[in-house]
Amino acid sequence: MLSDRVRMNAYFNSIFQNKHHFQGKTVLDVGAGSGILAIWSAQAGARKVYAVEATKMSEHARALVKANNLEDVVEVIEGSMEEVTLPEKVDVIISEWMGYFLLRESMFDSVICARDRWLKPMGMMYPSHARMWVAPIRSGSVDKKINDYEDAMDDWYHFTNETKSKYGVDMSVLKKSFSEEQRKYYLQTSLWSNLHPHQVIGTAAVVKEIDCLTVTVNDILEVRSNLSSSITLENTRLCGFGGWFDVHFRGRKEDPAQQEIELTTAPSIDNGTHWGQQVFLMHPPIRVSEGDGLNVSFLMKRSMENHRLLEVELGCEIRQCSGTILPSFNKKFYIE
Amino acid sequence: MLSDRVRMNAYFNSIFQNKHHFQGKTVLDVGAGSGILAIWSAQAGARKVYAVEATKMSEHARALVKANNLEDVVEVIEGSMEEVTLPEKVDVIISEWMGYFLLRESMFDSVICARDRWLKPMGMMYPSHARMWVAPIRSGSVDKKINDYEDAMDDWYHFTNETKSKYGVDMSVLKKSFSEEQRKYYLQTSLWSNLHPHQVIGTAAVVKEIDCLTVTVNDILEVRSNLSSSITLENTRLCGFGGWFDVHFRGRKEDPAQQEIELTTAPSIDNGTHWGQQVFLMHPPIRVSEGDGLNVSFLMKRSMENHRLLEVELGCEIRQCSGTILPSFNKKFYIE
Repeated sequence: MLSDRVRMNAYFNSIFQNKHHFQGKTVLDVGAGSGILAIWSAQAGARKVYAVEATKMSEHARALVKANNLEDVVEVIEGSMEEVTLPEKVDVIISEWMGYFLLRESMFDSVICARDRWLKPMGMMYPSHARMWVAPIRSGSVDKKINDYEDAMDDWYHFTNETKSKYGVDMSVLKKSFSEEQRKYYLQTSLWSNLHPHQVIGTAAVVKEIDCLTVTVNDILEVRSNLSSSITLENTRLCGFGGWFDVHFRGRKEDPAQQEIELTTAPSIDNGTHWGQQVFLMHPPIRVSEGDGLNVSFLMKRSMENHRLLEVELGCEIRQCSGTILPSFNKKFYIE
Repeated sequence: MLSDRVRMNAYFNSIFQNKHHFQGKTVLDVGAGSGILAIWSAQAGARKVYAVEATKMSEHARALVKANNLEDVVEVIEGSMEEVTLPEKVDVIISEWMGYFLLRESMFDSVICARDRWLKPMGMMYPSHARMWVAPIRSGSVDKKINDYEDAMDDWYHFTNETKSKYGVDMSVLKKSFSEEQRKYYLQTSLWSNLHPHQVIGTAAVVKEIDCLTVTVNDILEVRSNLSSSITLENTRLCGFGGWFDVHFRGRKEDPAQQEIELTTAPSIDNGTHWGQQVFLMHPPIRVSEGDGLNVSFLMKRSMENHRLLEVELGCEIRQCSGTILPSFNKKFYIE
């Protein structure tokens, strides 16, 4: 949290430019970490702030609260959100719960749980809304990753030849699973990336909108969407898709923010965040040009083996300006 | 295992240059991985080989055994060594159990367990012996790591100043724990390194000798040693210590190897292994010269939080040629 300026500013502004949401109110900070959001909430005038943190980081939070003379307002509670008991319901739940591409780590589950258990009927969520975005991109990484994969397979052939001739063991039966493993590692694992806006070669589309006040865990177990995008660059290569998110601080309809704040992790020259973007490479790249249309099918699920990780299926059909429709393709990715 | 030539050759030679230890014998391969040691044992003439592997890698091992037409000899068993039951006791236990600096990962525990449960009274261990070594070294890494640490602390001062002036929160109370964390990360975590032999500036000393036939888990929970080393280089810097290991394949006293094989992970120009060496940096470096004597105290324990990781305490007293004794120092390290 602390070393990401864009993130710090967004939360700071969301609180101090909307003090009326905090003055005299009770606040719950979910996954408080060092407790900075709880401290700001108190400084903005909250009557009481509960800062729930599951790890030993809670000790830092407690020290920080004390050093800033806020022990009377901020109560740090070490425990998991699913298990702690608060002495009262709260007016505001604030949390910095977002993972890579919004949902990696699945920490939002705890925020939803906190909301269902502890938010007053007319309470509000900070942030109040979240969106996931996808856009077509170009990227030199695709060439590098294909080379890396091919190098790994070359090494494998060399190695199995040697193992056969020098060590007398035929390893060729393992080729398929080795190749699948390398393919997954080099070509099907999404990349953390800090994309330059120029790498985005078409219109970005929203794949998921979340109202933090009403969404259920069930709503985010699977994210499924069909979306359209148009290529906006003359004669370029479609190398894959970039995925990012934004969140908004809008208060609630009956008591909106005086100043709406946006925190976006879209490609940016000056305002990159530690979240960056997730890049899903398509190989081989496909030549596209301005006006070409993409129909994209997007499906994201939690990994069966580890529900904090994600699996993505991206399908794409390209309608060229000329009217020609290229054969559609479908790829599977892992966000690890 | 497979991509490290030095390792492959040592095991291959230990088996095929000592076929008399395998011909007509029963063999247990502990932590078999892809099963290569089991296959070699069978090819060398074993009557029966049990290949125990706890992970899904056992499926690869099974495929490999079948592809090499050894299903009648090699039986792959998926399970933990502590829990599986074999139909008979064995003549030989073979295993590639060594972790960084020999004991990281603590896989040797399973080999000892296998030996106590399944090795015949006159059976033998492959490898039969292991040693841990320590030697004084010079290394430019120490300067880099000190710089990294100082950069991190500079960032911290900048960050806390800004957090105070711009965001109104005093973080200075966390300085101590931040500094300790950075110190641990940059200065107290041992480094994997592929040392050039020229970086070793004094005599190497054995800190632990293990007879695989008799050692108990208790014997390796803690490794404690006082050792001496002499600086062998004119006017250089003592920047820390390098740690490595070797293992030997000697059979047993009553039935020795025809050809003793050594697998060493000592600093080497041409025969580096994936184990490399662990480097423990001392800062600031100390100027030493040929003939200076070091008295080193070495203590290695398993980490309380994770018994697969290790903690090392290294103390050192330097007796200069001139007779002057420099103030001794003592440092704590983490092998992670």
